[in-house]
Amino acid sequence: MMSGKHTDVDDHSPFPEDPSDTQTAIMKATFEALCKHGYADLTIKRISEGFPMSKSLLYHHYDGKDELLLEFLGYLLERSEEQDSPVTTEDAPEARLYSFIEHTTTVSEKAHKSSFRNALVEMRAQAAHDEDYRTHFTCTRVHLVELLTEILVEGIEVGVFREDINPESVAEFLVTVAHGSKFDQATTNDPILEMTHAEVERYIESCLLRTP
Amino acid sequence: MMSGKHTDVDDHSPFPEDPSDTQTAIMKATFEALCKHGYADLTIKRISEGFPMSKSLLYHHYDGKDELLLEFLGYLLERSEEQDSPVTTEDAPEARLYSFIEHTTTVSEKAHKSSFRNALVEMRAQAAHDEDYRTHFTCTRVHLVELLTEILVEGIEVGVFREDINPESVAEFLVTVAHGSKFDQATTNDPILEMTHAEVERYIESCLLRTP
Repeated sequence: MMSGKHTDVDDHSPFPEDPSDTQTAIMKATFEALCKHGYADLTIKRISEGFPMSKSLLYHHYDGKDELLLEFLGYLLERSEEQDSPVTTEDAPEARLYSFIEHTTTVSEKAHKSSFRNALVEMRAQAAHDEDYRTHFTCTRVHLVELLTEILVEGIEVGVFREDINPESVAEFLVTVAHGSKFDQATTNDPILEMTHAEVERYIESCLLRTP
Repeated sequence: MMSGKHTDVDDHSPFPEDPSDTQTAIMKATFEALCKHGYADLTIKRISEGFPMSKSLLYHHYDGKDELLLEFLGYLLERSEEQDSPVTTEDAPEARLYSFIEHTTTVSEKAHKSSFRNALVEMRAQAAHDEDYRTHFTCTRVHLVELLTEILVEGIEVGVFREDINPESVAEFLVTVAHGSKFDQATTNDPILEMTHAEVERYIESCLLRTP
């Protein structure tokens, strides 16, 4: 029987409850072990504890936790590219921009989301000395900037955003704000995110939206 | 004789070339070892290699590298509180704000500055799971927000910044931007910082400066 904590993880995890293929099962076990132990205390052994298939498979396939984590991060990136998460392409550009801001500059009340966010920040910090992590997080940043640039270009075309903005500059800036917000959430006690969030909204209104 | 790398470190390090007291010598050796090895590969042994006094002193005084690093970070914070670095209180508020933005959102060409910035990002990421690091980086964030709030309040008083801004919100927002910029510089290849920087300046002009 599952504990409350695990049920909560499953409720919001991007993984099915009973993965049918080995790769998905490995990725799911990695996600749950990251939420539970964070990056620093993670070991292949701890990942294998939540892996329902042959434990030796994990030791056999991966040289260490970083090799497995890089595969895990690649898996998540591929999924986000397929889904354009956290914003769906069906919404209007303005709604998609606010959805991005909401997703990146407010605190989730779900404890496991904080755990996973903290683990992501720890993994990203590995990129300061590890070339493979650096390559991965460069890709995710480029992907995010492209996604936001598209939203902004589309918004200019339909007349909600100002024509004199530089969509790439705005996208680079907003990704920087998003990363700063995640970094602060993960590494400080109670950064005053409501204030940051309010000022981002003032920036959007003053600098991006077309005045009616 | 010192290598070019070490000369470069000394040129811009906050430490005298020949510290007369033990504490300063330990802090200087820690700074140089961080620039050379980063956080992940740092050991007390490596710090002791650049420490001109008794090596056993370091092993005797500190239980591990994190205890020494937390003392080092506290030492730097104390210095910055004394000096209000990177902005001097003599400049006008507008100049001090631009100096902060310049300092935090542009890339230094000095290799050792990048090394130290990366090591700081790695240390800060420890706060995701370590309460002592978290307490320290909460203090540095609060200090930075206070410093910027003062600049903004003073700028409103002398009439360079708009009266309808919320100084604390703006300060929280700009610290978030600064942290995002450092995080991106340390963990990705060539984030387009010129674009982020240009957009920060557009934000300052549109949202903070009083229109003449």
